[in-house]
Amino acid sequence: MTSARFDVAGLGNAIVDVIAKADDAYLIRHGIAKGAMTLIDPHRAKLLEDTLADTTIVPGGSAANTIAGLASLGGQGAFIGRVHDDWLGEGFAAGTRRIGVHYDTPAAKDGASTARSVILVTPDGERSMNTYLGASVELDEGDIDEELIAASKILFIEGYLWDSETLKGAVRKAIRAARAANRLVAFTCSDAFCVGRFRPDFIDLIENDFDIVFANQDELVSLYETSNFDDAFQNARATGKLFAVTRSEKGAVVFQGSAVHLIDAMPDVQVVDTTGAGDQFAAGFLYGVAHDLGMATSGRLGCLAAAEVISHIGPRPAVPLHGLAKSAGLL
Amino acid sequence: MTSARFDVAGLGNAIVDVIAKADDAYLIRHGIAKGAMTLIDPHRAKLLEDTLADTTIVPGGSAANTIAGLASLGGQGAFIGRVHDDWLGEGFAAGTRRIGVHYDTPAAKDGASTARSVILVTPDGERSMNTYLGASVELDEGDIDEELIAASKILFIEGYLWDSETLKGAVRKAIRAARAANRLVAFTCSDAFCVGRFRPDFIDLIENDFDIVFANQDELVSLYETSNFDDAFQNARATGKLFAVTRSEKGAVVFQGSAVHLIDAMPDVQVVDTTGAGDQFAAGFLYGVAHDLGMATSGRLGCLAAAEVISHIGPRPAVPLHGLAKSAGLL
Repeated sequence: MTSARFDVAGLGNAIVDVIAKADDAYLIRHGIAKGAMTLIDPHRAKLLEDTLADTTIVPGGSAANTIAGLASLGGQGAFIGRVHDDWLGEGFAAGTRRIGVHYDTPAAKDGASTARSVILVTPDGERSMNTYLGASVELDEGDIDEELIAASKILFIEGYLWDSETLKGAVRKAIRAARAANRLVAFTCSDAFCVGRFRPDFIDLIENDFDIVFANQDELVSLYETSNFDDAFQNARATGKLFAVTRSEKGAVVFQGSAVHLIDAMPDVQVVDTTGAGDQFAAGFLYGVAHDLGMATSGRLGCLAAAEVISHIGPRPAVPLHGLAKSAGLL
Repeated sequence: MTSARFDVAGLGNAIVDVIAKADDAYLIRHGIAKGAMTLIDPHRAKLLEDTLADTTIVPGGSAANTIAGLASLGGQGAFIGRVHDDWLGEGFAAGTRRIGVHYDTPAAKDGASTARSVILVTPDGERSMNTYLGASVELDEGDIDEELIAASKILFIEGYLWDSETLKGAVRKAIRAARAANRLVAFTCSDAFCVGRFRPDFIDLIENDFDIVFANQDELVSLYETSNFDDAFQNARATGKLFAVTRSEKGAVVFQGSAVHLIDAMPDVQVVDTTGAGDQFAAGFLYGVAHDLGMATSGRLGCLAAAEVISHIGPRPAVPLHGLAKSAGLL
């Protein structure tokens, strides 16, 4: 791939995660949809936070997590996303820069507070997210650094961004900047409910604007409204785009045109918290694509990064992925 | 597909199964390789049988099981395989004809007794087979009914047949008869150890003589001696042949040329005994191919038939598969 200052520029919601353990009874009691990402207002965020005794507060956000994973693999990453000028926003910015990610979106001086997601992790490792988008959805066209995008091999966009009308102008500007510089545009479907909300947009964008698409199996089935995985897979293949689809313990299927690779999940992983699994799969895969490692190795890097992140609490790698990938013979 | 008297003619070892429950400690104590098919002599067969208090005796044999499944789906099947003229042989013949399968290979008046397989089923549902091949390997060219093969859309051959040198002439004659009549030749790899014993033969036959190949994931990885499933899958794709590969709880992948179908396993199956899972998958798939139902539906019929047989003791359907397939919307 043509050389560039950055491997990937991520565009996404800048969110701080408030992580706590909870059981199914807690989810039922508080009306939380298990396994999904639900949007909430700041009042409900506070209400949930007040019920939780022991929380872990860390930088999160889907695309931001992916860029963090890319950096952990030794890749060069940049992130674009808006926080507020408050203590959570400062923590997000500091945490992002500390791991070597380029981040210079200015913090908002007025408007909503920094976005946060109350993430409940049940004993089965499943995570249920309750997200107050706050300042993150106030990202506007002025925040889109076209030079930065032109200097990145891949622009990576999260589907969650479609939850804000005001954000769409910024997303469009970013896509135009990538196209004009002949860069790849990658996209993650983010969440099956998210796909349900924006299906026609996503299908149109996949046909016309995106080169690489990430989805899990539920998202792919939702995207094409099929009754089984294989039919959704056939629909996706027909687009000719590069897809990387995760299937939980079934591993991943990576395909484009006549090429199809079936990548097994890493064996013997103890699932503690699935938060960030899809984000880190994307990190490994994008690292591989940006470094011309081929579809199969890129898929294996994705599975390796996902396996690491689900073995502990939190959405980002706990140990450097570069070393893990070297030990596994992938780098 | 051109019409014919039979959908499938199966060529295989005519074996009576002696099924018993056993635990891992029993396998260790008697030196039995878990999950494999091991060849034994009649002395050891008797020795094992004497240790087992409660056995179920039923007609078995890999290709014979497949033809039984085909009949259960409503297909027209024939079986070629040799028993001895003894009570086990009579039971095999009667059990085969009772379910509507055409079977007229003459029982041997002299030589070894009817083949039997002592199958130990462990609490995890895994089966370990100890097979005395007896009369079954004395099948010779004279037993190959060329007219019957010419009258069958598909000739189906089990890999286990390669365990006998004398049998190979009969197998070659059957393949020639199918080729001369422009019929399809299907083959099952049978067992990873079996693949290990006859790898060069199998690879050569797949390239030159077989149209349809059945394997499970371990057999495919053994066939192409790769370190992971995806590499074996790429090797198999390169042959251009129609493959149907089972992956236990991951379902099946069915492919030929640019077509690839990922078929999910049936959900919520309680695994009691995996004996016959591969045989019944082949039954469903071959029924679909013989009736022009397409690769995806054929794969689903295979998964449905496999799910039925692993939910109870024994290698053949306990309820009519035709009804199950209709209820599932596959027929």
